Amino acid sequence: MMITWNNLDTLASFKELSQVEKVNLVEVMSGDNGAERVKNYSVPMAEGMAFNYAARPIDDKVMAALTKLAEEAQLTEKFEALYNGEVINTGEKRLVLHHLTRGQLGDAVVADGVDKRTFYTDQQKKIADFANKVHAGEITNAAGEKFTTVVQIGIGGSDLGPRAMYLALENWAKINHTLKMEAKFISNVDPDDAAGVLNTIDVAHSIFVLVSKSGTTLETLTNESFVKDALKNAGLDASKHMIAVTSETSPLAKSDDYLAAFFMDDYIGGRYSSTSAVGGAVLSLAFGPEVFAQFLDGAAEEDKLGKNKDVLKNPAMLDALIGVYERNVLGYPSTAVLPYSQALSRFPAHLQQLDMESNGKSVNRFGEPVDYVTGPIIFGEPGTNGQHSFYQLLHQGTDIVPLQFVGFKNNQMDTDVVIQGSTSQQKLCANVAAQIVAFACGKSDDNRNKNFEGGRPSSIIIGDQVNPKTLGALLSHFENKVMFQGFLWNVNSFDQEGVQLGKVLAKRVLAHETDGALKVYSDLLNI
Amino acid sequence: MMITWNNLDTLASFKELSQVEKVNLVEVMSGDNGAERVKNYSVPMAEGMAFNYAARPIDDKVMAALTKLAEEAQLTEKFEALYNGEVINTGEKRLVLHHLTRGQLGDAVVADGVDKRTFYTDQQKKIADFANKVHAGEITNAAGEKFTTVVQIGIGGSDLGPRAMYLALENWAKINHTLKMEAKFISNVDPDDAAGVLNTIDVAHSIFVLVSKSGTTLETLTNESFVKDALKNAGLDASKHMIAVTSETSPLAKSDDYLAAFFMDDYIGGRYSSTSAVGGAVLSLAFGPEVFAQFLDGAAEEDKLGKNKDVLKNPAMLDALIGVYERNVLGYPSTAVLPYSQALSRFPAHLQQLDMESNGKSVNRFGEPVDYVTGPIIFGEPGTNGQHSFYQLLHQGTDIVPLQFVGFKNNQMDTDVVIQGSTSQQKLCANVAAQIVAFACGKSDDNRNKNFEGGRPSSIIIGDQVNPKTLGALLSHFENKVMFQGFLWNVNSFDQEGVQLGKVLAKRVLAHETDGALKVYSDLLNI
Repeated sequence: MMITWNNLDTLASFKELSQVEKVNLVEVMSGDNGAERVKNYSVPMAEGMAFNYAARPIDDKVMAALTKLAEEAQLTEKFEALYNGEVINTGEKRLVLHHLTRGQLGDAVVADGVDKRTFYTDQQKKIADFANKVHAGEITNAAGEKFTTVVQIGIGGSDLGPRAMYLALENWAKINHTLKMEAKFISNVDPDDAAGVLNTIDVAHSIFVLVSKSGTTLETLTNESFVKDALKNAGLDASKHMIAVTSETSPLAKSDDYLAAFFMDDYIGGRYSSTSAVGGAVLSLAFGPEVFAQFLDGAAEEDKLGKNKDVLKNPAMLDALIGVYERNVLGYPSTAVLPYSQALSRFPAHLQQLDMESNGKSVNRFGEPVDYVTGPIIFGEPGTNGQHSFYQLLHQGTDIVPLQFVGFKNNQMDTDVVIQGSTSQQKLCANVAAQIVAFACGKSDDNRNKNFEGGRPSSIIIGDQVNPKTLGALLSHFENKVMFQGFLWNVNSFDQEGVQLGKVLAKRVLAHETDGALKVYSDLLNI
Repeated sequence: MMITWNNLDTLASFKELSQVEKVNLVEVMSGDNGAERVKNYSVPMAEGMAFNYAARPIDDKVMAALTKLAEEAQLTEKFEALYNGEVINTGEKRLVLHHLTRGQLGDAVVADGVDKRTFYTDQQKKIADFANKVHAGEITNAAGEKFTTVVQIGIGGSDLGPRAMYLALENWAKINHTLKMEAKFISNVDPDDAAGVLNTIDVAHSIFVLVSKSGTTLETLTNESFVKDALKNAGLDASKHMIAVTSETSPLAKSDDYLAAFFMDDYIGGRYSSTSAVGGAVLSLAFGPEVFAQFLDGAAEEDKLGKNKDVLKNPAMLDALIGVYERNVLGYPSTAVLPYSQALSRFPAHLQQLDMESNGKSVNRFGEPVDYVTGPIIFGEPGTNGQHSFYQLLHQGTDIVPLQFVGFKNNQMDTDVVIQGSTSQQKLCANVAAQIVAFACGKSDDNRNKNFEGGRPSSIIIGDQVNPKTLGALLSHFENKVMFQGFLWNVNSFDQEGVQLGKVLAKRVLAHETDGALKVYSDLLNI
């Protein structure tokens, strides 16, 4: 089928969607009707998880319109074109291949003269081999001692995703005896970030992973120097403590400064790189390659669901469609991500980048301004912590914020405690269940200060436990949701031209080539 | 002067403000005019800091209208009433006294039969005495060994503020040889939070600070049990390892379960409690009482500026007024907090609670619905990390997000590195300067995908270094900004009824007293 890339507001189905009668969430979520909705408005995900959208502002009529929209916007066909290797990142004229790091969804994709699936799995094998040797004590420091700590040096996509995934699995790995090395992360150009981390580790037994696709990211190269100085000051040979994750054409690729180099390529954007060598090196070193492989399996299983044309069998597409309905028809400007799991403490920060950097655009994929709003503000913290923080505004503020809950039946570690007749895990789950209903249904009170209007939409992804497979599936869900929303908004979700101007001006400041306001700010900051 | 509490949209000056011609930020921030603005649009803060608002959408006409608004809304008089002990938290019929923890701004305030300033300083002295004894080895574990770690058990305001302040000063304290004990934090009811922290500490040499005003916060009591089990399993007497921070009337106050109890009261809300015993115990134990005293001094100095009737001498009031202009006249729905300092990594999370829990309200202080928007969404991460994450949307997204930058001329630690002719600290500062100008002025490009419209407002607080005094001043600035905005919106910024419904429903779930949607969610989550 011929694919056409049209703006959202030119689609007949979108106009239709705008005119469908709005759902009264308080009404439909109350009583037996509400119970039925929660039972029925659920779509299976990979790894035994489910996407439950009962508390989103949807009914059969809205669903019918969303289904038409999915068809008219050719979401399935566009995804197919993407995983079959078309140039979907039109701005940078690049393929978009992060799905290939975890599975083959369609045709073989050949680029730069190689089969890309083979390229990615080869890198995984090389990383696995390297990690196994480190764990076995075959690759050691100069004194022949085992490495105990791995430190990732990277920023943005080379930091947030891998860090969030590491934190998500750290305690799980401890309990399952697969925590091979502790991982730390250095990202900020603030010298106190590197110095602070170096202060807490034993550099003599640390291996550093330098991650930069271009090999020219200023923050990362600066922090590399920081680390090299620390190694030198400790009387160590830096090149025996560092590996690189970079593109084959970068200056880092063949340098003698590194024990080894593992490769990524231009077809995987930083924010989509957790399943590539960018996440692979640090996570394989921390948890062992088998755990990283399970993480990829979970993502691959979830990716397959993204191919389904039937919206009710495609949770990422469904989530994307409802999100666009909330953003462009109902007019809600932000979305909160609220995982009820301490292990997912930095998952919202990763999704914040994934979503806002992908779809925070004002022009369509042809560079023409769009007449509708695109990506929303994304923020969040884990529950129950958030409940004691910003939930006040979510319940009673003047703006409505759609919520994406994530909950798990079981915790990761083997300790729990019974207080007032329930475990902590039960309390955690009781809270997320309670919040969904409180937000949707509200509660009238004559004292208006204690009144809850309700009508505040949410969905919940429910899983058994945060483990490598469910984590992979969860990551895939949100990556594909963002991709489908990009298709709907007709933007290029895979470039980030908006970060360039700041870089250019910062260089000018450092070169003292400024005038006007910029010069005065530079003076005020003593640069 | 008689104080009247009026809704924002009833004020003549607000209507006037709405009609003032809008400022074209690209225009006014360009060329020599821009340079002049940056020089002039600056208000001194305490501790040598300054609030620079050159890149906010303001000019003389808007300023004149804001000044009138401040007068008509009686901001100075309302603050005066607050610190002189009037019942400003009308919903809960309570005084609002957090300023008294760090200074006496006005009249002596007597409540519950005592002078409240004396009450707070007495608690500080008791905490100082206790902390000094712990540091001197006069208070030890049962084996007579010194405590090396302090663990705060608390949630919401008992967690976010103290945690953010600890992280802000941890490296500073290391360099200045005042890091007496490492601090850790347990907050989430997720059992993996407590188990995860307990896994990383030596409980035999740890002292735990249980923080709950009421003594009944379920998350906190649950986590206390967790910790007590761990102590018991290690063959230790829990009561020799725990102190309590609570109100004098709570069940914890006189319990034998604690080595000591320090007191707060109902006149300090959780999110305003960093300068009370809630922050005082953990920070005095971690850094020594002198460091905590400096932190209070910084806040007290900044508080004094809040009394100024002249808006141009009152940075918190000015920030508040511009924020309300951006929210209610220009219609921007969210605000980002972007500190260019890794030390302030969790400062945005604290401000998120402070702001959203205080002003996320739909009714005025008399319980009547308001016809205008109130508190915005607050989010943020430290720069430069954010630049590589969500800044794409901030630069080129379809919504405009006002930005609150914070920058410091110097870093905290004594290590830095010169790469490409500049230090990391200079790069950090160059980036924040560049971002302000990039957001304000933009840059035209024929390729619309590389085009930056500009007109995106920001302000910056510039200080010398993150240290106890500047941190205190910074905290005070934002607390008072939120307070003044609450006055402008005529809401009660000091209660949080919006968190109650979720609590009630969660209890019902745990008691298995549910029906409808709530019952099905409970089943799906295996409760």
